[in-house]
Amino acid sequence: MICVTAFYPAAGEGRFDTVYYYDRHLPMVSRLLQPFGLQKIEVDEGVSGFAAGMPPNYRFICRLYFDRLEGFQAGIAAVGNQILGDVGNYTDIPVELQVSQTRTL
Amino acid sequence: MICVTAFYPAAGEGRFDTVYYYDRHLPMVSRLLQPFGLQKIEVDEGVSGFAAGMPPNYRFICRLYFDRLEGFQAGIAAVGNQILGDVGNYTDIPVELQVSQTRTL
Repeated sequence: MICVTAFYPAAGEGRFDTVYYYDRHLPMVSRLLQPFGLQKIEVDEGVSGFAAGMPPNYRFICRLYFDRLEGFQAGIAAVGNQILGDVGNYTDIPVELQVSQTRTL
Repeated sequence: MICVTAFYPAAGEGRFDTVYYYDRHLPMVSRLLQPFGLQKIEVDEGVSGFAAGMPPNYRFICRLYFDRLEGFQAGIAAVGNQILGDVGNYTDIPVELQVSQTRTL
């Protein structure tokens, strides 16, 4: 499984419109990337560091799970600009992105 | 769902013994935390940044999924020292930890 992760750092307290994110952005991402093999989206909302009361490093982390790397790459080539162009509509936090190979134990 | 995430930064090229990690550490974590509600472990191995060929921020990311925050907290109180005390056996990368609330879309 391929996991494409978007990290939104908690430091800096930037703008993040959760209503737009959940109601508009993620449904669009899902609709655009499902034809390219997107299987599932998971969103983490940071609660704390390891110890309760300590701040989390990331306010939001979003994972897009694909069967194959080639599917993600083809999807980004086709609709990546549309997805990335929507980010400014819900946040000004500089997003960090990573592609990983994921295994479930 | 609660997701407890361990991030191993890629910067610095520290030691990481994948054989020990997969064959010894994670099975121990699973065995110790299942009685406290651990549902699933996922491990990401960083492939690239968003663009192919760019380095990922994290070399490994490990997620422990729990039904309830209280289960994780009780588990850590009971067996956390045993788990954290094993980390030095497979890596010297300074691990970052975060607790998140996770939803699947």
